[in-house]
Amino acid sequence: MSITKPSLPKGTRDFSPQEMVKRNYIFDTIKTVFKKYGYAEIQTPSMENLQTLTGKYGDEGDKLIFKILNSGEYLSQKVLDKISHLKKEFEEAQGYIAENDDSNPDKIVLGGHASVVFGSKEEYNKLQKAISLYKNVSKTILTDISEKALRYDLTVPFARYVVMHQSEISLPFKRFQVQPVWRADRPQKGRYREFYQCDADVVGSPSLLNEAEFILIYHEALKNLGLNDFTIKINNRKILSGIAEIIGKPALIVDMTVAIDKLDKIGFDGVTKELLERGFTNGDIEKLKPVILLQGTTDEKLSSLKLVLATSAVGLKGIEEIETVFGYVSKITGENAKLKNEIELDITLARGLNYYTGCIFEVKTNEVAMGSIGGGGRYDDLTGMFGLKDLTGVGISFGADRIYDVLEELNLFPASAAQGTKVLISNFDEIAEIYALPILQQLRTANISAELYPSAAKLKKQMSYADSKNIPYVILIGADEVDSGLLTLKDMESGDQQKLDVAAIIAKLST
Amino acid sequence: MSITKPSLPKGTRDFSPQEMVKRNYIFDTIKTVFKKYGYAEIQTPSMENLQTLTGKYGDEGDKLIFKILNSGEYLSQKVLDKISHLKKEFEEAQGYIAENDDSNPDKIVLGGHASVVFGSKEEYNKLQKAISLYKNVSKTILTDISEKALRYDLTVPFARYVVMHQSEISLPFKRFQVQPVWRADRPQKGRYREFYQCDADVVGSPSLLNEAEFILIYHEALKNLGLNDFTIKINNRKILSGIAEIIGKPALIVDMTVAIDKLDKIGFDGVTKELLERGFTNGDIEKLKPVILLQGTTDEKLSSLKLVLATSAVGLKGIEEIETVFGYVSKITGENAKLKNEIELDITLARGLNYYTGCIFEVKTNEVAMGSIGGGGRYDDLTGMFGLKDLTGVGISFGADRIYDVLEELNLFPASAAQGTKVLISNFDEIAEIYALPILQQLRTANISAELYPSAAKLKKQMSYADSKNIPYVILIGADEVDSGLLTLKDMESGDQQKLDVAAIIAKLST
Repeated sequence: MSITKPSLPKGTRDFSPQEMVKRNYIFDTIKTVFKKYGYAEIQTPSMENLQTLTGKYGDEGDKLIFKILNSGEYLSQKVLDKISHLKKEFEEAQGYIAENDDSNPDKIVLGGHASVVFGSKEEYNKLQKAISLYKNVSKTILTDISEKALRYDLTVPFARYVVMHQSEISLPFKRFQVQPVWRADRPQKGRYREFYQCDADVVGSPSLLNEAEFILIYHEALKNLGLNDFTIKINNRKILSGIAEIIGKPALIVDMTVAIDKLDKIGFDGVTKELLERGFTNGDIEKLKPVILLQGTTDEKLSSLKLVLATSAVGLKGIEEIETVFGYVSKITGENAKLKNEIELDITLARGLNYYTGCIFEVKTNEVAMGSIGGGGRYDDLTGMFGLKDLTGVGISFGADRIYDVLEELNLFPASAAQGTKVLISNFDEIAEIYALPILQQLRTANISAELYPSAAKLKKQMSYADSKNIPYVILIGADEVDSGLLTLKDMESGDQQKLDVAAIIAKLST
Repeated sequence: MSITKPSLPKGTRDFSPQEMVKRNYIFDTIKTVFKKYGYAEIQTPSMENLQTLTGKYGDEGDKLIFKILNSGEYLSQKVLDKISHLKKEFEEAQGYIAENDDSNPDKIVLGGHASVVFGSKEEYNKLQKAISLYKNVSKTILTDISEKALRYDLTVPFARYVVMHQSEISLPFKRFQVQPVWRADRPQKGRYREFYQCDADVVGSPSLLNEAEFILIYHEALKNLGLNDFTIKINNRKILSGIAEIIGKPALIVDMTVAIDKLDKIGFDGVTKELLERGFTNGDIEKLKPVILLQGTTDEKLSSLKLVLATSAVGLKGIEEIETVFGYVSKITGENAKLKNEIELDITLARGLNYYTGCIFEVKTNEVAMGSIGGGGRYDDLTGMFGLKDLTGVGISFGADRIYDVLEELNLFPASAAQGTKVLISNFDEIAEIYALPILQQLRTANISAELYPSAAKLKKQMSYADSKNIPYVILIGADEVDSGLLTLKDMESGDQQKLDVAAIIAKLST
């Protein structure tokens, strides 16, 4: 066994006891709210069949999926023969193509010294393909050597789950899921190759009550985490479609939204420049301007939009959906949701536009400079990718790592989220140890998390152990204590010491 | 996007809401006990560097590690050249060796038609190696195409954690960890390729108090899970060493323990047969017999062993350690641990002998036919594999999947472990829905998990939804209820209905 200085794969992290307690505090707070709203937890395996994931995240996404090597002799004779064959074809094709002119593929000549016309465009393409296959040999033989991959998000596995378990589940199916996902992204500050997603989705219910409840879930969870100044932004894909329709460029909806989504960062002039580059005219931009720069209260924004979108059925439908969501939130809470600071209609919000078909959400904190700490939306055909048609889904996600950083920066983790063991009993010699053993049991029987230092050691060492574990109390047992039955309880924060009997200590530590 | 009928990789599982609640019940119960004894949670990444894992689990274990393909062009030109080169060497070597006689490697002749002596034994071995390298090409190029792997257990990652974080942690370091592990084992009933381990270990403390506390942790956790009849078996590697020493076969300790470990399954005659096959004489077995068939109370067993092992220092040390552990348990609990049914000295217990150096534990339930539901022990050089010497560790593991099956079979999951949403509010029309919305909020404000059926639907459909989610109460709101303010609360188990106002419903559901 060779000794290696250990390290971690880049983009992955260990979590210490202190970090785990804080992470659990975030997850537990969010899970509690999910459950209160009727969401039930599921878990799916870390590995999915490669074909379950491939093609669901676009070409760029496919590259970022971590593939698992088949076990055993994955480079079978068959695979090796395939590689040899690809190589041979590649070399032949290269020889043929070497002296040819890419711009004139109709005339293919044999490479090398001879110059004989023999080919056609079809032949040429075949040769090019042979070259490309070998150049991309990793991708070409991928399915031969890997059948499984680590999940990339929780949404595709959820869609698979719904399709595979459709006979067992009752619609609408409200599930939450808190599990790690893996992405072969270039690691950088705040971006990891393994990170937790924290999602709630409901499938099989077109009711906009679900959207309203997601706003309430965000609101309640973030408040419970101690955040006070945050914005839950809402938009609707149908409004964006309506706008593209009104300016007569429905096919350019993606270009339009990509550009206006950047308003925050590049300002209106930047957006104008980008729109011009993406095929919009100055006339289009004139029409877009009032929409992009929409100001005022939610009611004022909606009124303006209704005028602008008056001739777009889909646009008006989007406005109606937004109005319904605000209506639900108002009726549930008894407050006018349109007047609430925390909820904002933001027409420039587009997140993953090709995916969402109805409402779109995004959450930002205003207390710390930080990207979005949550997002989601409705997608009308969640399970279509696995052949189950017409099931609508809507869901949200919490960005747990970012929320962690926000709470840390604002010092919002409660003291209780940093405490494990409540009391350490000191251990100075065998007599004190024997005296301590039944006390240990009494403390634990009273559900107090307690430890006895496991061997006799100097006071300083034991105190430093208590400090490092954030243990708030230490019971000191010396000869006096054994004689009198009154133990010294030291409060590690204040340094105060009290002489108390076991019952009094239990009473004090139970509070 | 091609539509594929989805499936799961073999050996992996989805967990439904019902299963998750039960699994969480098991994990939470065990975690609560770990914490009570001063253990703190850590997590490590799912992926480790391949070299962190390789060589730690033996050759068989190495084969069962799931390797992750490097992202991007893992079959680089360099790797392809290497494969080509291996193939060429293989073909040449085969040609040379084809007509030779394996049993006479000193005389190597050229294969094919010629028959020229040209080689030596060294040359012959080189040729054989070239053949072997190509035949095992998957293994040969493994490190070129894979740098990472999924963790195989929680112990090696824990050892790595301790070494990497040695400057931050304070010894003794008591950690627990509940995370999935992956093994490319052949899946079969009860054996999965992804499963959770649930471990607690302490590193840096030789005190046998730790061993005693692990017995108490097992005891408390299993009791809290509702198990009544279980056995925590304890043995000590040093006793096994002593026995091998006494019969004069210290080198055969592994053979001896492998054989006597099977006493339960194959009986004494079977063990005798196996011992004879493994190089023991009838005389050895005569000496072993009283040890293997040791009967009586713990005190009687220890007395007999002391006589048998009287001349073995290591054997007596093992007995002393066992006595100390029993002593600690007795002093902590105030009961004589040697008389407790749940704790049994079992001299045939050996679990992973090459690994453990001191006490060995194993837990079995006696209520259901099932393999062990937990195990562990002390290993004196936990972190040596990563170059940090002389750190002793001791730990235990709970077999969560088996415990799940046991609780299921004994019907021990509490009703609370099957309940998510407490109350569903029916939804028959828009008037009732609007009426229900603020009530939904009042219920949730009182921390009652509540749902409003998200759209108007037939009673039957809503009842079947409540049934499928195990929701114990439904609030029915029709025209009468809207008029009177008295809502109909239906108890889904008994079928009883009561007319109550919201405050009374909240009072009832809060209990």
